[in-house]
Amino acid sequence: MRIAIVGYGYWGPNLLRNFSAIKDCELAYVCDFRPERLSLVAAINPSVICTSRFEDLLDDASLDAVVIATPVFTHFDLAKKALLSGKHVLIEKPMTSSAAEAKELIEIADRTHKILMVDHTFLYTGAVQKIKQLMADGVIGKPTYFDSTRINLGLFQPDINVLWDLAPHDLSILDYLIDDVPYSVNATGVSHTGNDIENIAYLTINYQSGFIAHFNCSWSSPVKLRNILIGGDKKMLLFNDLEPSEKLRIYDTGYDHKSDEDKRRVMVDYRAGDVFIPKVAQKEALFGMASDFVASIREERSPVSSALSGLRVINILEASQKSIKSNGKEIVLQWN
Amino acid sequence: MRIAIVGYGYWGPNLLRNFSAIKDCELAYVCDFRPERLSLVAAINPSVICTSRFEDLLDDASLDAVVIATPVFTHFDLAKKALLSGKHVLIEKPMTSSAAEAKELIEIADRTHKILMVDHTFLYTGAVQKIKQLMADGVIGKPTYFDSTRINLGLFQPDINVLWDLAPHDLSILDYLIDDVPYSVNATGVSHTGNDIENIAYLTINYQSGFIAHFNCSWSSPVKLRNILIGGDKKMLLFNDLEPSEKLRIYDTGYDHKSDEDKRRVMVDYRAGDVFIPKVAQKEALFGMASDFVASIREERSPVSSALSGLRVINILEASQKSIKSNGKEIVLQWN
Amino acid sequence: MRIAIVGYGYWGPNLLRNFSAIKDCELAYVCDFRPERLSLVAAINPSVICTSRFEDLLDDASLDAVVIATPVFTHFDLAKKALLSGKHVLIEKPMTSSAAEAKELIEIADRTHKILMVDHTFLYTGAVQKIKQLMADGVIGKPTYFDSTRINLGLFQPDINVLWDLAPHDLSILDYLIDDVPYSVNATGVSHTGNDIENIAYLTINYQSGFIAHFNCSWSSPVKLRNILIGGDKKMLLFNDLEPSEKLRIYDTGYDHKSDEDKRRVMVDYRAGDVFIPKVAQKEALFGMASDFVASIREERSPVSSALSGLRVINILEASQKSIKSNGKEIVLQWN
Amino acid sequence: MRIAIVGYGYWGPNLLRNFSAIKDCELAYVCDFRPERLSLVAAINPSVICTSRFEDLLDDASLDAVVIATPVFTHFDLAKKALLSGKHVLIEKPMTSSAAEAKELIEIADRTHKILMVDHTFLYTGAVQKIKQLMADGVIGKPTYFDSTRINLGLFQPDINVLWDLAPHDLSILDYLIDDVPYSVNATGVSHTGNDIENIAYLTINYQSGFIAHFNCSWSSPVKLRNILIGGDKKMLLFNDLEPSEKLRIYDTGYDHKSDEDKRRVMVDYRAGDVFIPKVAQKEALFGMASDFVASIREERSPVSSALSGLRVINILEASQKSIKSNGKEIVLQWN
Repeated sequence: MRIAIVGYGYWGPNLLRNFSAIKDCELAYVCDFRPERLSLVAAINPSVICTSRFEDLLDDASLDAVVIATPVFTHFDLAKKALLSGKHVLIEKPMTSSAAEAKELIEIADRTHKILMVDHTFLYTGAVQKIKQLMADGVIGKPTYFDSTRINLGLFQPDINVLWDLAPHDLSILDYLIDDVPYSVNATGVSHTGNDIENIAYLTINYQSGFIAHFNCSWSSPVKLRNILIGGDKKMLLFNDLEPSEKLRIYDTGYDHKSDEDKRRVMVDYRAGDVFIPKVAQKEALFGMASDFVASIREERSPVSSALSGLRVINILEASQKSIKSNGKEIVLQWN
Repeated sequence: MRIAIVGYGYWGPNLLRNFSAIKDCELAYVCDFRPERLSLVAAINPSVICTSRFEDLLDDASLDAVVIATPVFTHFDLAKKALLSGKHVLIEKPMTSSAAEAKELIEIADRTHKILMVDHTFLYTGAVQKIKQLMADGVIGKPTYFDSTRINLGLFQPDINVLWDLAPHDLSILDYLIDDVPYSVNATGVSHTGNDIENIAYLTINYQSGFIAHFNCSWSSPVKLRNILIGGDKKMLLFNDLEPSEKLRIYDTGYDHKSDEDKRRVMVDYRAGDVFIPKVAQKEALFGMASDFVASIREERSPVSSALSGLRVINILEASQKSIKSNGKEIVLQWN
Repeated sequence: MRIAIVGYGYWGPNLLRNFSAIKDCELAYVCDFRPERLSLVAAINPSVICTSRFEDLLDDASLDAVVIATPVFTHFDLAKKALLSGKHVLIEKPMTSSAAEAKELIEIADRTHKILMVDHTFLYTGAVQKIKQLMADGVIGKPTYFDSTRINLGLFQPDINVLWDLAPHDLSILDYLIDDVPYSVNATGVSHTGNDIENIAYLTINYQSGFIAHFNCSWSSPVKLRNILIGGDKKMLLFNDLEPSEKLRIYDTGYDHKSDEDKRRVMVDYRAGDVFIPKVAQKEALFGMASDFVASIREERSPVSSALSGLRVINILEASQKSIKSNGKEIVLQWN
Repeated sequence: MRIAIVGYGYWGPNLLRNFSAIKDCELAYVCDFRPERLSLVAAINPSVICTSRFEDLLDDASLDAVVIATPVFTHFDLAKKALLSGKHVLIEKPMTSSAAEAKELIEIADRTHKILMVDHTFLYTGAVQKIKQLMADGVIGKPTYFDSTRINLGLFQPDINVLWDLAPHDLSILDYLIDDVPYSVNATGVSHTGNDIENIAYLTINYQSGFIAHFNCSWSSPVKLRNILIGGDKKMLLFNDLEPSEKLRIYDTGYDHKSDEDKRRVMVDYRAGDVFIPKVAQKEALFGMASDFVASIREERSPVSSALSGLRVINILEASQKSIKSNGKEIVLQWN
């Protein structure tokens, strides 16, 4: 199988390294319009063809797949051309600038029988896979909430706000772990640079089941935090991605409640118990993601990090932005 | 000066101990309708008169002041009666069940020339007083955000939601530290007990200046967190109340930005520098609060934790509840 | 049962409070030669007889037991007189200034059929009792090492060095948990005040079985640490006494080794696995200790924190001091 | 300048990468007797000559310098041959198996006017350089102690004990920071594998000035710790190498003491104050070390991590081993 990488920016070397390491997979091209970036590729990997012309890739009938790692606003156009030229396509997160674009790409991929995938790398980490398994085993019980904090002194992006930049990680994890349909969103935020692009934003996702999800995203925090709390009616779980060796903590903590005949009166039994820190497999998540892309093409199956999950994430981001710009108003999500 | 405590619940022993320790101040009564609570008082402090009749206090012309530590829904009625009987009044937080009640109490206190105070204990901690001083000295620069997390496995209250229970602490700190008028609130939340009383809630306070404040409150977290992050254009600050000896951290971290002529393009200069952990005075905040009440009466001046700050906190809580019940809709605050 | 406390210093109020709380036990006397200390007792507990004359206690035939909480150098004399007057005796740690004194007290107690106990409070903490149970259940396997760090900016004692001040806690825990006979000690240390009383000291206890114990004690550390690591051939354990709610961590971590025929060649299999943080009962250890003293007298049985364990701790402290003063030379312990 | 690496084991790729990155320096050879290791080099860097014959390096008159990264017992022989063939030599830590060997190498290097250097990488870290500067500026005052803990579940070495494996890092830092001559050592330890090679060891270094240094080294800890505490009469300092961004903490904490006329009585004034966490330059220490080697050769000057510091470290390690094997007996260090 022959693969090309389009866009050799911050993430490029990681993609190059991991796709180069996959067996029976040839990294054929790297495409970037900046000559200085291409010269870096040539230094590391002289056998790759470096080009600034995207058309070269489309014209090469022996090229199987294209990995798109360019700025978000270019994703749709590049992916559409690649799909229509008969290539399988992997897109960096966030998938597109709008849900409409994501839907159109999915339709084209369906029609052309090509794999369309989005790179939600976190789904391939040992920690998230462990949580998935624990939840499948019923350890947590019925999930009740998801509370994510992803803040640090981060690069202010010039074209997308902090939710589009940081929340896709957590939204893809939420989408992967929770089998429930988000009903609506409320989001608030602020831009401290005067360009109307929020550098701090807060998002609540409401569910009709009573589940709730919340996201605290900031490029303006002196402290770096990457936490997800997941509540369940049996146990609760903390995923702290900054812990080098203790990323997951499972708390044997919770409460049961029963309502009195008087609706407002509720009896709550609390319990606080042991904590368990399972060993989590240390593996390069990006290699798992790249391997899943290649295997999906070979086995003609959907990847874990599917285009549909990419669309669901974009759907929420789009609604969040609408909510922020409407003073936090509830935006009901459209899923059809 | 002679003082009475009304309501001898969870907080009662702390009030008793601290008011007993104030010089030239006699703790004359403890009033509670539960005999078993009163017998606890008698065991510790035999010289205090224990009574279940609130009227005894009102009828005692030599009683100067009343401390109200009963459930919230009784605050207004008890405080009103005490003020009208010529007593100075201290009320536990939250001050009342509604802004209208708080306003009426303030009017009565003004008319009767009595001190009316609310117990926002946190304003008297070494940490908050240090932050106040640092901000007055210009260390932080112009404040840009306030982000509070107060979560743990907490007691589900039967009559007030998690915001009314936990947020008054942080709202009073915000009110004390930030000289800016909140414009509106958005709040979301969920009740997992089916009694419509939220056990998890999120609150954003919007300001017309571009400042933003956010509050994450939960009774359902396996992890106990009590953090406030305050951003400024010079430095940023973390107040972690659970740290035994390093409650404050000042980060020489920030960013400057200047807009390009093109409004959307912004140049951002980042800096991450030293961290400074100032020593914070260890003192009992409740003793400071109690002393301020007594001194305010003696000196006929407003206490730090004034009734007006209590009203401002109630105003925000009331608007928050309205927002939660209106699906997160923005509620513009009324300040007149 | 009637009890007296001798010495009302730093620890006095805690002893008073806990002995007062024991059922069917009357705190009859507090004895101290400092009038200002006795007046504190009178304020808290008017029914206790306050005296500066130790003889009053000895002369009171209805007094059952004496608790000695005076400076170490007075322990022997006071305890001896009390035993010979027919009182049961509890002594604060360290038990005496020398092993010879401890032995003599034990002989007198045996002869007079009185309970002689030393206050090793830590044995009654939820954490140490949990470790004891885990080790009894074989969770750790065969113990291989014990490594304790107890350092902070501590009060320089005028009469005993940092080992005599801090190590009794850890030595008593070691004695309680490890069923193996210490063979010898090596200790080093330094005095920064020129009075020959070490403020930093290091102690190794050697065992003929291959087990090893080490103690790092300091009054001169800016950081406060209270850690004990216990290695076993199955699992390892960390006791961090400064953690408010996660005092114990059990690591499913270890190594197996088998020697090659070539004695120097060893094959080592490592494993690093899950971590388990058991919930530890929160209880006042001092109340448990006081109760054990009273129950030991009533039931005519040896307490958990026995005089023999006190002697074993003194034996090690005495040998450690000898080692420090002999430039770290190995001192073989005498156990008969 | 042309350089060769001898021994391409665990550390080899790091040496290769850093020496390859130095300007005007050609990595000419990698020498290893294992063909599979050499094939790794060829894959990464095809222009390097790979050889299993050390003589090839000695015979190449245009080769300037040799980097020795083989097992410790081979260091002396390889370094001696290289020096005698006219090469400059860099040796991985620990420098040699004995002080006698280290001395002989130093003599040969002096005679042949070649640079002889040992790789004490830590001296080139931002953290240690910051401490060096702080101490030079008098921030700490007069140093009083050095207390190092370097423990984890580490690889059991087959030929050297845990002190020879781990302590060189901390001993080289001590040697670099403290201008005082160690007088003697006491060391204790234990081997749990029966091969007489200690996996846990404790080392005290005594100074006639009253300064003291202590080292706790273990391959058998479930917890990974890399801490150095440095006490001074003005301030104290903690270097925690596992902290990603807060490696140094300076405590405005300490004590002053003055002796009474009575020698045993000492008055101690304690202070606990602010904590300061300076920003530490993030740079690759190994690159700094490699650059210093190359610059030392060019500028004909001694490197920071000199052969003499290597000898001083070996001197202490040798004495420590002697002490362990003599039951912790004090071994007076020979410095001439």
